[in-house]
Amino acid sequence: MTRFAVGLEYDGGGFSGWQQQEDAPSVQQEVTAALASVLDHPVDITAAGRTDAGVHARCQVVHFDSGAQRTGRALVLGANSQLPAGISLRWAFTVADHFHARYSAEARTYRYCILNRMSRSALAAGRSAFVYKPLDAERMQAATAHLVGYHDFSALRAAECQAKSPVRDLSRLVVRRVGDFVLLEVTANAFLHHMVRNIAGLLIHIGHGEAEPGFAAEVLAGRDRRRAPATAPAGGLYLWRVHYPPVFGLPDDSDIMRCPSGCPADLLDT
Amino acid sequence: MTRFAVGLEYDGGGFSGWQQQEDAPSVQQEVTAALASVLDHPVDITAAGRTDAGVHARCQVVHFDSGAQRTGRALVLGANSQLPAGISLRWAFTVADHFHARYSAEARTYRYCILNRMSRSALAAGRSAFVYKPLDAERMQAATAHLVGYHDFSALRAAECQAKSPVRDLSRLVVRRVGDFVLLEVTANAFLHHMVRNIAGLLIHIGHGEAEPGFAAEVLAGRDRRRAPATAPAGGLYLWRVHYPPVFGLPDDSDIMRCPSGCPADLLDT
Repeated sequence: MTRFAVGLEYDGGGFSGWQQQEDAPSVQQEVTAALASVLDHPVDITAAGRTDAGVHARCQVVHFDSGAQRTGRALVLGANSQLPAGISLRWAFTVADHFHARYSAEARTYRYCILNRMSRSALAAGRSAFVYKPLDAERMQAATAHLVGYHDFSALRAAECQAKSPVRDLSRLVVRRVGDFVLLEVTANAFLHHMVRNIAGLLIHIGHGEAEPGFAAEVLAGRDRRRAPATAPAGGLYLWRVHYPPVFGLPDDSDIMRCPSGCPADLLDT
Repeated sequence: MTRFAVGLEYDGGGFSGWQQQEDAPSVQQEVTAALASVLDHPVDITAAGRTDAGVHARCQVVHFDSGAQRTGRALVLGANSQLPAGISLRWAFTVADHFHARYSAEARTYRYCILNRMSRSALAAGRSAFVYKPLDAERMQAATAHLVGYHDFSALRAAECQAKSPVRDLSRLVVRRVGDFVLLEVTANAFLHHMVRNIAGLLIHIGHGEAEPGFAAEVLAGRDRRRAPATAPAGGLYLWRVHYPPVFGLPDDSDIMRCPSGCPADLLDT
């Protein structure tokens, strides 16, 4: 048996999220079926993290084991010919047997895109949140100082979150305006359920001028989800990158991953 | 009666194109219905140009007449609340009575996006053409020299093209690679049916190394559509900008129009 790691891209619209649910096909179900077809045997895949319905991925990472002899290239091309247009394999490599898509990850980076202008956009529909009231990105950036670090994020986790501990190490949080878009990038060792969308909701509230940047510290200290502003919409969220130790040799920050993907979240690199 | 000009954005996927057809709702039909609802009377709209099924617009321009008292802002917000997610009004202004969306236009600019790498992309699906064989963008750019100018474009027009003359003035044609994307921008006084997609198809053929850059001149001189390579797919094409004389005061090159729209065609500005 050989262990494979695969980088996956998807448009979350039209899927029930990563995990199988009843109302729509899940990304997991589609990818499992496509890989089973290419490998010619049933396969169990494990992802770096679950994403909710409507949430996109520039690079979700999964692993699975197979005795089939397949090159990475054959896996990518074979699976992509089976998958619906909204899901694609970006790369595939054989990895050490002890690699685990979830437990080997040292950190995850998400991006969150907000279109902030008077009128909505057809081309950005489902690819960014739409907020018509003006946002002050510098004010939002000022609030990030209260969120970066090792904190109890109970105030920014969903009620149904199943994580044992609410403590996470948020190492980086950036806010920048590019034209009509306000873009967030956030990196942490791991995230609680709805944590990025709740951070986005909190920063939007502050960006509107409805609270001072210091409100972020108050919300965090209160550890009460009911005191934090509303969760921002799923369509603005992208699982952007999963960080692994270099020893595994995955294309974590290679040319493959630096290439623009054609979505609004690219604008943060301009 | 007052004449209004409106800037429209749309994702061509899911529509039968600009003009009404039987198999799917057209952009024209959706916009006409939304404006009639906001204006509270039937309305006839005239567009700068028709786009085919699957072709996108960053800024299609239309005009219509109305006796209703509406601000541009009210028109944009009102129509956008009625329109499907894939269509949005970008701006609306009152204009001089002699303004005509089609006949007042001095030129049109289209962009064409090609994703050129081994594997297709979920996030760029329907938003760019996918070409897996390597493309040499410099070779493609060299071929553009033979297309720029005042030419008979019979070789690059669709069989069903209804234009009286095949002569067009192509003032600008740029090819540039940005990461895995090869992007084209082309400006002409007007375009024949399928002309941009046929130019893209010809440049792809040359970019693959299947012909010398000078082949573009041969194809043009032959004036025979059957000698030119295949038409490139609709999903890579964007009606980017319609150019009017400054006297009409439209936001032709203002901040509104310089703002990124969140699609792969933005990459040409990076």
